[in-house]
Amino acid sequence: MAGEKRAGILMAGTDRTQPMNFDPAPAIILCEPQLGENIGTAARAMANFGLWDLRLVAPRDGWPNDKARAAASRADHVVDRIRVFDTLAEAIADLSLVYATTARRRELAHEVIGPDEAARRLARHIGSAQRAGMVFGREKWGLYNEEVALCDAIVTLPVDPAFASLNIAQAVLVTAYEWRRETTQAALPVSSPAASLASKDELRGMYLQLEEALDRSGFFKTPEKRPTFIINLRTMLGKAGFSDQEVRTLRGILAALDRRHLYDKPGRGLPRRGRGKASDE
Amino acid sequence: MAGEKRAGILMAGTDRTQPMNFDPAPAIILCEPQLGENIGTAARAMANFGLWDLRLVAPRDGWPNDKARAAASRADHVVDRIRVFDTLAEAIADLSLVYATTARRRELAHEVIGPDEAARRLARHIGSAQRAGMVFGREKWGLYNEEVALCDAIVTLPVDPAFASLNIAQAVLVTAYEWRRETTQAALPVSSPAASLASKDELRGMYLQLEEALDRSGFFKTPEKRPTFIINLRTMLGKAGFSDQEVRTLRGILAALDRRHLYDKPGRGLPRRGRGKASDE
Repeated sequence: MAGEKRAGILMAGTDRTQPMNFDPAPAIILCEPQLGENIGTAARAMANFGLWDLRLVAPRDGWPNDKARAAASRADHVVDRIRVFDTLAEAIADLSLVYATTARRRELAHEVIGPDEAARRLARHIGSAQRAGMVFGREKWGLYNEEVALCDAIVTLPVDPAFASLNIAQAVLVTAYEWRRETTQAALPVSSPAASLASKDELRGMYLQLEEALDRSGFFKTPEKRPTFIINLRTMLGKAGFSDQEVRTLRGILAALDRRHLYDKPGRGLPRRGRGKASDE
Repeated sequence: MAGEKRAGILMAGTDRTQPMNFDPAPAIILCEPQLGENIGTAARAMANFGLWDLRLVAPRDGWPNDKARAAASRADHVVDRIRVFDTLAEAIADLSLVYATTARRRELAHEVIGPDEAARRLARHIGSAQRAGMVFGREKWGLYNEEVALCDAIVTLPVDPAFASLNIAQAVLVTAYEWRRETTQAALPVSSPAASLASKDELRGMYLQLEEALDRSGFFKTPEKRPTFIINLRTMLGKAGFSDQEVRTLRGILAALDRRHLYDKPGRGLPRRGRGKASDE
């Protein structure tokens, strides 16, 4: 398992017993990418979120590309399936819904949508057994208008206009993330521990134990403030949402602290309120 | 403006007349980052989505770091403000809501949420003038349990379990994207062209013009099929959602095509249906 710790912050979460995911998903088309690193990191970002169909239009340094494979951090199931085309028209020939990603304002009359809306539409389209894809432009100047015109709509990311420069792989990552969020209802690979909240009766037992312990300790100097204080105390502790196990732990802690008072002080005969069974009695 | 084409697919969208964004936003805390590149690309990802408070806990190669600045692609307003701390506890001392990002299943009882839910909670917290942050672990092995225990909940990304290895900057990017999506209601820097859909009357004029042109051209070999065909034709063209300008363009095209028939054929005496004014008559 040591090998799994090699490459990324979240590497430890990779489960190599899971089969690679080739469910129907949008194709990602990179138009004339210049840097192999960008192809590789785009492939990795796709694999993170369940995409696998990567297509390149006239990559500057040809294909295959060692730098791309290195940067893909073992997303080999994506890299091995990369297909290369001469033109964008050929690369999207089999698709019936294609979005162009761009941040540039254009004179085209294309509708502009965000990656969340794009993911919803892609999911509907692919859910009805049709093929779809998203096109990403060149590192230096994006897509030509002629290329955008081949697509059905423009997807742009909600970046800060003061700093809109986004790396290709990062643009791919956000759109892939939205695709997965949409199609898995944001299913997380790690879930919250099975929530077993303490019952109201378990909580009440703990509150009574605590309150009796406070009584014995001489905490309430002015008894008339006790009722309000106890309401506030129960409200405060209730917010934590303790589990039944945590209540047991807290009652053990209370018992240990309370015992100290039993030994230290003669206060055990103080007047009682509430019906709870105090520990050790 | 040539300089704006330098660094990224979406570079052309950067508007340098916009002031840098220092609105209240979550701090990003990187725990013992090893590679300067990751610090820089994380800073760039933050800047893309309006974050600016980056804190480092004991970066391996010290600080400042030239590789970090180079990788930040001019996100200098973030890099210049980076603060370095010896421990995570010091780095988060002024924050009252802190999430730990991790993909590893842990024995801790922490709640696990996705980046979208995290963004909603961070927005509420910061909206009520409180400070918050998100902690990211080491490239190789993430966060120690003792560090996660300093945080309020765990954020994990909905990655494909079969390929969960995510680079730190990419994890930062997704959480920053969700922050901005939540706090700007996904406002896009580029919007759809002002929609000025053609009125029903403008569309009807075009349909009639087309139908008369088809009549003249001898298109309807079997006149009894004409009514159904015309309904289907209008439905089909209606789906495109033409603007008034597009209708004018299409009518010009129609007129040009129709004129050819006027000259080529003796069909101009064919029976008319509808009241539309045919062009050139």
